[in-house]
Amino acid sequence: MDALKVAVIGGGSTYTPELIEGFIRYYDELPIEQITLMDISTDRLKVVGDLVQRMLGDLSIKLVRTTDRREAIEGAHFVLSQIRVGGLAARALDEQIPLKYGVLGQETTGPGGFAKALRTVPVMLDVARDMTRYAPDAWLINFTNPAGLITEAILRHTDVKAIGLCNVPINMQLSMAKFLNVPPEQVELQYVGLNHLSWARVLVGGRDVTGKVLETHWGSSGGHVDADFLRALGMAPNYYLRYFVHPDRVLREQLTAEETRAEYLQGVEAELLKLYADPDLKEKPKLLETRGGAHYSTVAVRLIRAIAQDRREVHIVNVHNGHSIPDLPPDSVVEVPAVIGSSGAHPLDSGHLPPAIRGLAVAVKAYEEMTIEAAVTGSEDTAKMALFIHPLVPSWETATALWNDIKAAHQAYLPQFK
Amino acid sequence: MDALKVAVIGGGSTYTPELIEGFIRYYDELPIEQITLMDISTDRLKVVGDLVQRMLGDLSIKLVRTTDRREAIEGAHFVLSQIRVGGLAARALDEQIPLKYGVLGQETTGPGGFAKALRTVPVMLDVARDMTRYAPDAWLINFTNPAGLITEAILRHTDVKAIGLCNVPINMQLSMAKFLNVPPEQVELQYVGLNHLSWARVLVGGRDVTGKVLETHWGSSGGHVDADFLRALGMAPNYYLRYFVHPDRVLREQLTAEETRAEYLQGVEAELLKLYADPDLKEKPKLLETRGGAHYSTVAVRLIRAIAQDRREVHIVNVHNGHSIPDLPPDSVVEVPAVIGSSGAHPLDSGHLPPAIRGLAVAVKAYEEMTIEAAVTGSEDTAKMALFIHPLVPSWETATALWNDIKAAHQAYLPQFK
Amino acid sequence: MDALKVAVIGGGSTYTPELIEGFIRYYDELPIEQITLMDISTDRLKVVGDLVQRMLGDLSIKLVRTTDRREAIEGAHFVLSQIRVGGLAARALDEQIPLKYGVLGQETTGPGGFAKALRTVPVMLDVARDMTRYAPDAWLINFTNPAGLITEAILRHTDVKAIGLCNVPINMQLSMAKFLNVPPEQVELQYVGLNHLSWARVLVGGRDVTGKVLETHWGSSGGHVDADFLRALGMAPNYYLRYFVHPDRVLREQLTAEETRAEYLQGVEAELLKLYADPDLKEKPKLLETRGGAHYSTVAVRLIRAIAQDRREVHIVNVHNGHSIPDLPPDSVVEVPAVIGSSGAHPLDSGHLPPAIRGLAVAVKAYEEMTIEAAVTGSEDTAKMALFIHPLVPSWETATALWNDIKAAHQAYLPQFK
Amino acid sequence: MDALKVAVIGGGSTYTPELIEGFIRYYDELPIEQITLMDISTDRLKVVGDLVQRMLGDLSIKLVRTTDRREAIEGAHFVLSQIRVGGLAARALDEQIPLKYGVLGQETTGPGGFAKALRTVPVMLDVARDMTRYAPDAWLINFTNPAGLITEAILRHTDVKAIGLCNVPINMQLSMAKFLNVPPEQVELQYVGLNHLSWARVLVGGRDVTGKVLETHWGSSGGHVDADFLRALGMAPNYYLRYFVHPDRVLREQLTAEETRAEYLQGVEAELLKLYADPDLKEKPKLLETRGGAHYSTVAVRLIRAIAQDRREVHIVNVHNGHSIPDLPPDSVVEVPAVIGSSGAHPLDSGHLPPAIRGLAVAVKAYEEMTIEAAVTGSEDTAKMALFIHPLVPSWETATALWNDIKAAHQAYLPQFK
Repeated sequence: MDALKVAVIGGGSTYTPELIEGFIRYYDELPIEQITLMDISTDRLKVVGDLVQRMLGDLSIKLVRTTDRREAIEGAHFVLSQIRVGGLAARALDEQIPLKYGVLGQETTGPGGFAKALRTVPVMLDVARDMTRYAPDAWLINFTNPAGLITEAILRHTDVKAIGLCNVPINMQLSMAKFLNVPPEQVELQYVGLNHLSWARVLVGGRDVTGKVLETHWGSSGGHVDADFLRALGMAPNYYLRYFVHPDRVLREQLTAEETRAEYLQGVEAELLKLYADPDLKEKPKLLETRGGAHYSTVAVRLIRAIAQDRREVHIVNVHNGHSIPDLPPDSVVEVPAVIGSSGAHPLDSGHLPPAIRGLAVAVKAYEEMTIEAAVTGSEDTAKMALFIHPLVPSWETATALWNDIKAAHQAYLPQFK
Repeated sequence: MDALKVAVIGGGSTYTPELIEGFIRYYDELPIEQITLMDISTDRLKVVGDLVQRMLGDLSIKLVRTTDRREAIEGAHFVLSQIRVGGLAARALDEQIPLKYGVLGQETTGPGGFAKALRTVPVMLDVARDMTRYAPDAWLINFTNPAGLITEAILRHTDVKAIGLCNVPINMQLSMAKFLNVPPEQVELQYVGLNHLSWARVLVGGRDVTGKVLETHWGSSGGHVDADFLRALGMAPNYYLRYFVHPDRVLREQLTAEETRAEYLQGVEAELLKLYADPDLKEKPKLLETRGGAHYSTVAVRLIRAIAQDRREVHIVNVHNGHSIPDLPPDSVVEVPAVIGSSGAHPLDSGHLPPAIRGLAVAVKAYEEMTIEAAVTGSEDTAKMALFIHPLVPSWETATALWNDIKAAHQAYLPQFK
Repeated sequence: MDALKVAVIGGGSTYTPELIEGFIRYYDELPIEQITLMDISTDRLKVVGDLVQRMLGDLSIKLVRTTDRREAIEGAHFVLSQIRVGGLAARALDEQIPLKYGVLGQETTGPGGFAKALRTVPVMLDVARDMTRYAPDAWLINFTNPAGLITEAILRHTDVKAIGLCNVPINMQLSMAKFLNVPPEQVELQYVGLNHLSWARVLVGGRDVTGKVLETHWGSSGGHVDADFLRALGMAPNYYLRYFVHPDRVLREQLTAEETRAEYLQGVEAELLKLYADPDLKEKPKLLETRGGAHYSTVAVRLIRAIAQDRREVHIVNVHNGHSIPDLPPDSVVEVPAVIGSSGAHPLDSGHLPPAIRGLAVAVKAYEEMTIEAAVTGSEDTAKMALFIHPLVPSWETATALWNDIKAAHQAYLPQFK
Repeated sequence: MDALKVAVIGGGSTYTPELIEGFIRYYDELPIEQITLMDISTDRLKVVGDLVQRMLGDLSIKLVRTTDRREAIEGAHFVLSQIRVGGLAARALDEQIPLKYGVLGQETTGPGGFAKALRTVPVMLDVARDMTRYAPDAWLINFTNPAGLITEAILRHTDVKAIGLCNVPINMQLSMAKFLNVPPEQVELQYVGLNHLSWARVLVGGRDVTGKVLETHWGSSGGHVDADFLRALGMAPNYYLRYFVHPDRVLREQLTAEETRAEYLQGVEAELLKLYADPDLKEKPKLLETRGGAHYSTVAVRLIRAIAQDRREVHIVNVHNGHSIPDLPPDSVVEVPAVIGSSGAHPLDSGHLPPAIRGLAVAVKAYEEMTIEAAVTGSEDTAKMALFIHPLVPSWETATALWNDIKAAHQAYLPQFK
């Protein structure tokens, strides 16, 4: 794999410069021959593509832009996916609709994530099926959210070699390293759970320092969940746990906020695209960082490097469970440390979940399983039941009302439900 | 086991005549030599005991009353437990306290059941330890609620042969039989779950009639949960599922009710005791049926008969899980069909839980596991975490507030928390 | 299911009078409307059928004889299978061939059972597929040996409701009862394993009397395996365990025997058929008992009764494992206690196998799995590997030599291996 | 962990120069402050220790020699164990005794390994208990054979952090690399099983090349097992599998050999010690390679480096199973790829064993479990049963005879059996 070809599905995303910046940063170690940006928007391909071209400068990376998915996929060694079906407008709805029913609105968690999943699963299964046809040996690196659920849908319904990625694990590691004042690679996370619902014990030099990290109200989740909760839990949680620990607090914040996160991001996006259009801009602008996705490129490029160069090093990824977490179904996808090399991702034996997190992890995974089933079959009963069993949905009445609203709002993207 | 001796811990309960009525009804098939009623209240022993003596009439069953637990247990073949630590006064608090925090108040489910468990586990472990000492071969038939959790505490912390019993399964079976117009024994329940959190498929003559039962809005849960929920679920639920399916509706009812169930029952109890005191009363009065516990005596006596006579017939009981439900820990207690004989209860292989019920069952079982741990260790962090992971407790703030209130209210019964 | 129709595949077997005798014995409790004897031999149908007709006497059971499998299966509620592909002549080869290689020759165990399985699996899958077409609701009661392996093949490769039966469990129970001087129903066997490879703890009245049974060198296995082995084992073994405990001794006996068991039985068969042909014979002749298969009819008729009358009583049968024995694959078939009713066989949770028997059970089950695969795919490599992993086959050289010999000897019955 | 202290239990072994040579080779990357050689033989400590001192030359590694185990362990970061209870004389018996009963004699496999285990377990448990007292944070790197069984005994009965090591995995990797003409680190072994009973799929650059390796009759096992067996198996076996695939062939070789391996090695040892005593010898002599143990030092030093430097890289080691191989008990020790860092060894999820190897792996692991139990409890019944369930022991008679012989022969080393 000397001359790597990479395809980016959703290449017109404003995130793309972040990704490209990573390929440039690691170019010496991981030379790329060709990057293909595929998007359904030619406008985006123009603006983002032009910036990417300028960023690449003299590097001998060939840049291709296309609206033809087949063209993008054919010949690719790695396909990166970062699509957003319905765009930020749909996300705004995802964040608003639940509020009507006293449920928090969040892009990937709860009813918001559910709606996003229903819109996205069919499109990502199409992408995966194209890969089966046109690039059967390629790897799918999936950032498309909800990343764990989408990866599970692909592994359950296609033969594509897919790995789901998220930047939460690396951000946890970096923030702990900063707090503990050690180099990041000295921080070992004994990490279990699902994408956006995970917990870790923290070790340095083989010593468990979780207690110390939690006592001092560790940064990444600090402020996010209460200190006495952390102490009782005894594990460092993914900051998305906040939505399950303090849902009322989050709901109050959202109800009193001037705009949803999606609305805010629509402004950022517009501004970013304006910046990108500046022919003098030749690097990722600072503003992009406020978009979220810090270190997104680092984890993506390192993962590709580990596969391409058969490094067999440990990354925390979304991967087929097997018996890694024996409390979850073998066919499900979990977010755990895995050895990554040319033969793919091999999860470590993670052991049984302690009771304090077992129920939540199993319940959310069952919700994901039913959501995938609903997205694939178009069964409304399954859709409602998936919503109902989500721990943030308090009752069947709420599940039903949410479903009716979601179905009506996203009708154009939910053809499977007639 | 010809001359059976039975001890009833909490024998002064107003339920006792129900139980005695069962022993009388089955006397020909299951002759009992001695019944010992043990209670901490001599007043209750007098009133209830006198009625029991009159009920027994000419039957050659010896009746013993005692406030000495050792005397009751020694020599017994079966120890039945139906205690209520703190009495109905404590139950009233269990039902009231959660309402302050927007959480429904229920005797065995949610924060109410949690408080009851903390009060009861230490007392029942004492009973079990007395059995180890004074009647190591005896069977403990546990009706003390929360029956599954209490049975699990005993099996985890002592060597006593304990089986937990509930009248929900028989009531489900009887109501289905009535609805389907077949004899009860023709109804087969493929029943899985926990005490007060269970689901069943319904078969008659080997044919699955669950759909038919649910379509016509089956009695036992009918009115309890919505018809469209039942259809989507595809299983007949224990009516306690109502608390998880329609918690808002229940909460509204409770907030507008004139009195809690416990308060209502306090009136019933007073009236019952007045009735019992009537020297002309020689049978279980009709009013007792409003107390709940229908068919309680039937399941108890049949279970004792199955053990004493080594019948090896199928009963739905609370039993050590093993691998019966592989989604739940082997050491936990589940409510499933089991073969009952002289060697005890042997659960059937129940298979994996479908996703629609998996999360709830695992979450509540984890809550039970942590509640037992809190009751045994007296750790406040564990207690709060147990409350938090209960699916009806919406947030850590609520869990904390509930805990503080529960701890203060039941101080006298919670010596393990200093 | 008032008017039961029963089809017997292999109805011309000399065993048939034993089976019929059972139907007659239980007629009052389990009235049968029609018995269809199906066989490929019209001669056999004539002789055996005539005797059966005389046995049935005045009972209003309709007897049908046919060589058309479809005719037999169509309309049947229960299909009993007792075929022997290749007859006793093939069995004689199964018992002789292994001896050449220093391996014992046995009908169902080791290379003999392997050859029998390869011949039989395809035929039984054909029977099962006919049932899917012509009697999809019917039950297959499989006595065809190797009964566990054959049942597993059917459950793996068809949707037929099949239960495998053997008379070893009832014989164990009866011999223990006799030895312990208690009624058979008082003996509880906590029985685990595979068909012809099983172990039991023995309880009476809930008390474990295994030690007592073993100490006194219990009958059924007594003489079969050494007393000190039994003591070290601590469980009562199926007498087929003898082939694994004392293979050298058995081999010596076989090498010095005047004839194989099959050869002996060929004589018995001839004599039986002569007896059957006697128009004055109206009952099962005494000689049939020397044929083996004692109580075969009892277990068959009781099993049919339990299903037809939805009795939900415990029988030891060959059934889909699920998680009954967690050390064996969920999709495999095991011989364990199961609750039998109209909805089929529901195995009890049997728990982990102790180390003294774990390896043998897992190894033989893996051998069965590979043998089925070989029988279905016709892969010679799989066939040789199946032989090699059988614990009685000492080496790859022996496995290879056995395979070549078996393949040549049974060519006519092994069309799947070209 | 800058200044590492290493203790070698059995430091007077002729293997020690091999180990020292590794420490010297890796000195720049892994500086060692002190090496303590502990042995029960002062003669050995003198001869071997002197050579080691000369080998160390100018390196600033302090060399200590002692017969006091406590002195060696106290302060050590790593304790390496390479003891041989009873020496080569006992090994000679282990290799000879089985031959009398037609069973092959082998140091670690079969009855030979059994006898060795019984002698060694108590001594190694003493070593481990000393570590608990005098160096509770130290790591035990166990080479003492049978390495998997010994490591399991330690993990089952003490709290010591023990990892078992063998040089077979690295030799497999190196020989494959040579055969495939690629650098060793490009060979990925998907390796499962137990110490001296393992199987691997072979990948290069993520591509499965097992078939290619097996077709061409791969070196390391080539000649060891037949080519057609390899093809049917489809995995590359540990060469010890030869003892299970061709036991008759091995037995014939052993019966016709002029001397056992132990007898041969006794000659080598004597010669080695003579060489070592030469004051001009300053390096590991060539002859040592014939002793076996190639690359022993490489795996040991790399493992220590991975732990000391928290490298989190994949090594194939003997480690607590957990759910890595779900077919084997969680508490057992397996030989699988594991991520090694300062927090220890974390096995990868290895998945279910295919049927061709499942029975053998489970049977030998059960044998190991019972052998440990026999060694700890001194139960003769358990000892005989352990022997009997070993796949190379053909019958109970043989197991009994072997046991009597082994017990008598090694009496001095088996005080637990009175």
